[in-house]
Amino acid sequence: MFVTSCYLQPFGQVPAYQEGDLTLFESRAITDHIAQKFASKGAQLVTGEAEMKVWLQVEINHFEPASSQLGWEQVFKPMFGMTTDPAAVEANEAKLTKVLDVYEARLSKSKYLGGDQFTLVDLHHLPNLQCLIGTPTKKLLDSRPKVSAWIADITGRPAWAKVLAMQKH
Amino acid sequence: MFVTSCYLQPFGQVPAYQEGDLTLFESRAITDHIAQKFASKGAQLVTGEAEMKVWLQVEINHFEPASSQLGWEQVFKPMFGMTTDPAAVEANEAKLTKVLDVYEARLSKSKYLGGDQFTLVDLHHLPNLQCLIGTPTKKLLDSRPKVSAWIADITGRPAWAKVLAMQKH
Repeated sequence: MFVTSCYLQPFGQVPAYQEGDLTLFESRAITDHIAQKFASKGAQLVTGEAEMKVWLQVEINHFEPASSQLGWEQVFKPMFGMTTDPAAVEANEAKLTKVLDVYEARLSKSKYLGGDQFTLVDLHHLPNLQCLIGTPTKKLLDSRPKVSAWIADITGRPAWAKVLAMQKH
Repeated sequence: MFVTSCYLQPFGQVPAYQEGDLTLFESRAITDHIAQKFASKGAQLVTGEAEMKVWLQVEINHFEPASSQLGWEQVFKPMFGMTTDPAAVEANEAKLTKVLDVYEARLSKSKYLGGDQFTLVDLHHLPNLQCLIGTPTKKLLDSRPKVSAWIADITGRPAWAKVLAMQKH
């Protein structure tokens, strides 16, 4: 089960995951564990291909830093009564532009980022993408046909609709 | 083979790895591929355990950001004739302190970070650790008995001595 207690997580962050004697933290290690363990149920989210692992790293090292900063500046800072820093937005939009150009080229060769099937690579993008869709940074997504078709596809999955519905409660 | 050409890497960075038709980038995806492919030769660097995957993520998300900034400020900036920013050093030493406190606790329970055997988790720490050893930040490593014993162990492996010898050429 997912727990929100910090005591399971040495860095005092969420999420943590507990399953019998096994306690895991770090979201991408948790998704990997769940995908492997429940591989026979629902979509197969891990291919085991080296190619998929490359793109898992791309999300972590390129997409996440720029997109999470853009979410922080434009969504979370206003939520906490703080002021958006336009210079930080500009700098991170420049970084995200490079990432999205690479994605546009990648998605003209394969249907999804990790290969021809939906995998954890795509799934790991969902929270930050969903956040950016509600900001002016959306223009960078909309202006790239392959990227915007990919976003429509992965945000349109029934499983993601369930996540969004849970967040509203 | 490892290649230094940017043309294989969509973000224009090194390293990239080519093996027949397979081209990989992102260093941690490359080490994973090599560890899996040559699992029968030399040390077994991947356990497949969820626990190991947690600590692979810890290196990426906690150790790498703080340690690479400390290396940039104290080793690479001076090398390029730039000035070290003491505030950046202080901020990143504070972040690294938290990480090393978690490592000290972890290494009192298991011999290596990923479990009881040397794995890619430890290996991925080597470049930034080696860099920090040559800076005043070394004091944060030396003051933690488990961490300093672990560093002595992993930097003392013959394979790492070979890497350092190659760097000198």
